[in-house]
Amino acid sequence: MVKALVPLLAVAAAAMAMIALRQREKKKHAYPFKRTPIKRLPLDQLPRLKNDLLVRAYLGQKTERVPVWCMRQAGRHLPEFRALREAGYDFFTMCQVPELAVEVSLQPLRRYATDAVIIFCDILVVPQAMGMEVKMVSGVGPVLPQPLRTPEDLARLNKKPDIEATLGYLMDALNLARQEINGQVPLIGFSGAPFTLFTYMVEGGGSRTKDKVKSFLYKYPQAAHEALQAITDVCVEYLIAQYQAGAQALQIFESVGAEYLTQDHFYEFAFPYLAQIAERVREAVPATVPLVGFSKGTQYAYEKLSYTKYDCLSLDWQSDPTTVREQVGGRVSLQGNLDSAAIYAAPEVIREEVSKMLKKFGTQGYVANLGHGCAPDFSPENVDTFIKSVQQISFEMNSV
Amino acid sequence: MVKALVPLLAVAAAAMAMIALRQREKKKHAYPFKRTPIKRLPLDQLPRLKNDLLVRAYLGQKTERVPVWCMRQAGRHLPEFRALREAGYDFFTMCQVPELAVEVSLQPLRRYATDAVIIFCDILVVPQAMGMEVKMVSGVGPVLPQPLRTPEDLARLNKKPDIEATLGYLMDALNLARQEINGQVPLIGFSGAPFTLFTYMVEGGGSRTKDKVKSFLYKYPQAAHEALQAITDVCVEYLIAQYQAGAQALQIFESVGAEYLTQDHFYEFAFPYLAQIAERVREAVPATVPLVGFSKGTQYAYEKLSYTKYDCLSLDWQSDPTTVREQVGGRVSLQGNLDSAAIYAAPEVIREEVSKMLKKFGTQGYVANLGHGCAPDFSPENVDTFIKSVQQISFEMNSV
Repeated sequence: MVKALVPLLAVAAAAMAMIALRQREKKKHAYPFKRTPIKRLPLDQLPRLKNDLLVRAYLGQKTERVPVWCMRQAGRHLPEFRALREAGYDFFTMCQVPELAVEVSLQPLRRYATDAVIIFCDILVVPQAMGMEVKMVSGVGPVLPQPLRTPEDLARLNKKPDIEATLGYLMDALNLARQEINGQVPLIGFSGAPFTLFTYMVEGGGSRTKDKVKSFLYKYPQAAHEALQAITDVCVEYLIAQYQAGAQALQIFESVGAEYLTQDHFYEFAFPYLAQIAERVREAVPATVPLVGFSKGTQYAYEKLSYTKYDCLSLDWQSDPTTVREQVGGRVSLQGNLDSAAIYAAPEVIREEVSKMLKKFGTQGYVANLGHGCAPDFSPENVDTFIKSVQQISFEMNSV
Repeated sequence: MVKALVPLLAVAAAAMAMIALRQREKKKHAYPFKRTPIKRLPLDQLPRLKNDLLVRAYLGQKTERVPVWCMRQAGRHLPEFRALREAGYDFFTMCQVPELAVEVSLQPLRRYATDAVIIFCDILVVPQAMGMEVKMVSGVGPVLPQPLRTPEDLARLNKKPDIEATLGYLMDALNLARQEINGQVPLIGFSGAPFTLFTYMVEGGGSRTKDKVKSFLYKYPQAAHEALQAITDVCVEYLIAQYQAGAQALQIFESVGAEYLTQDHFYEFAFPYLAQIAERVREAVPATVPLVGFSKGTQYAYEKLSYTKYDCLSLDWQSDPTTVREQVGGRVSLQGNLDSAAIYAAPEVIREEVSKMLKKFGTQGYVANLGHGCAPDFSPENVDTFIKSVQQISFEMNSV
């Protein structure tokens, strides 16, 4: 009964947040949103972690059970999120208004016993910060009306944007979220990886074959490197700012584009920038803040990635946990990788798949997750089954 | 000058073929086409091969240079093909009218020094033969208006179609093509692999995530196996009939869907049927007719595939030739795998990429090809550069 009320209460809370926000908004649904910066608390005044299971697992420290969260756990599969969207807020407004972003980030924590909160945002805010227009078109996905197609187009990029001025809203959201979460679970910040962002910037949106970005590499390799280095510089600064605002772990998403590359091109155009980000962020951020790398569809690269500065590698569903454990030795923790499609199955099938997965990964140096993000048509009950199964089964495994 | 006339002559030939065809057609653009079967020549009366380079390379026999062809070499990137399409022929009519299919299959041979002809057809003719409607929608791709979504839907499938009655047009086309090619190069027949076909049959067309077919496997594993076995039975009979009609090599395309599976699901739902096809076709077809397996996006499976009855494995562009050579030992030949996007590059870049590829694969037990099919916006000049580069460079490598 009380449980059934949770989504309703969340919607009510959100509605109240919205009413408060209307007075701050210049124009409803407006983007970019004219922001009144909040006063952020410094790191040492933010609440300390009570459940640090996720951080310990990322860092390879002993855990009594396996922590679990779901990539894209905030968002369209939750009715309380859809209720907010239906109230008329543009997608990027929801990212840009800290109170809204915090509300959406916390929705999964109210509903599930998740071991982490990931801040609600989008990887394409980085291209926005670099001066590119990005629209979220319903039923289509992101659209960048003026893509980069020739080396000359790079002149349109702002290679050194002021992170606070362009992306400060995310730091506000992280800082507020840390205060609201009050130490219950860690807060994860994130960024798209450079090649993923470059893919969108060249393709101009989704694409079936990634022909445009791939031919850019063959035609203009030097210009590609120039763009990728500029994107990398922004990502590094962005991630460090996220730590300073309150993020307790940082994940980098190489989720679009790199899987379409030859191995030679991956190692030339994607891997070095992924590695560089970890290297440079690690220098600025204490070792207690884990860095997680997700490189989708590039299973051949796990061993080489394990020698970079990532503490944990997040595996897509096609990766075989046993093989990857062997390839990475004890150098990194692993995260992942239940096939998202398993969430459509009956609860007993979900539990069985979770059990198989836990046996392959083991219970240490491991964070359970999906191999990809939550789909909009996921049933929250099944997501709940996934999360509880991980926690119960891994606890039992440790008790044996 | 003469060379510039080739496409024009081809179009003229095609136009003449079309005029002849109008008298045979029941209704213009009609599908399915009411066919007047041709009288096929028996195998022993068909022209013998003069250039058997491709067959020798597939079978691991010594070759003086590397043979080369391009997956999807017939079709939309050729102006002479588009001219035919613009004359008003529906895509499947072009597959179903043997004279048209032969004309289109031979277009690349007139233009390029390709070492093989692949018969023009579509993998989705097998679902058609099994009673499913398949439409080719311009700008969208294939659409199956009544997909299989539950075990009950399988009742709609014709599990034992009469191959001659439903797919005999392809046998006509193969037989005619063999006569026209007159031994210049070998003629390749093909089929989609069972999981690829099942993917289309469940998804109902293209799909970004393949969620429907993937969740079918989690929800109804037994029904999935039942459907896959039925598709396999049809494919086996279809491929044997292709050999009997004149195909001199057979390629099986696992090109859609399997790459979205977990490794466990690939080995449960895709691999066994791929292997079964090779096994059963091998029993019915002489060892001199090579069987080629293409399994896209499942790089982890090459070693296991090398122990099946395929003579050659065709690699996608993400596969590393050196690694795969090690994994498959000397058990199979390899085909592939230039990144299709390289065809967009300048001629000198294409030559350089070909040279790198040849060094990795070596010149023996190897058929050069693209890692995926020709794209509609390929420049024929660049495809020509690819083909000639393979032939020249590999010949030079062998002369050293």
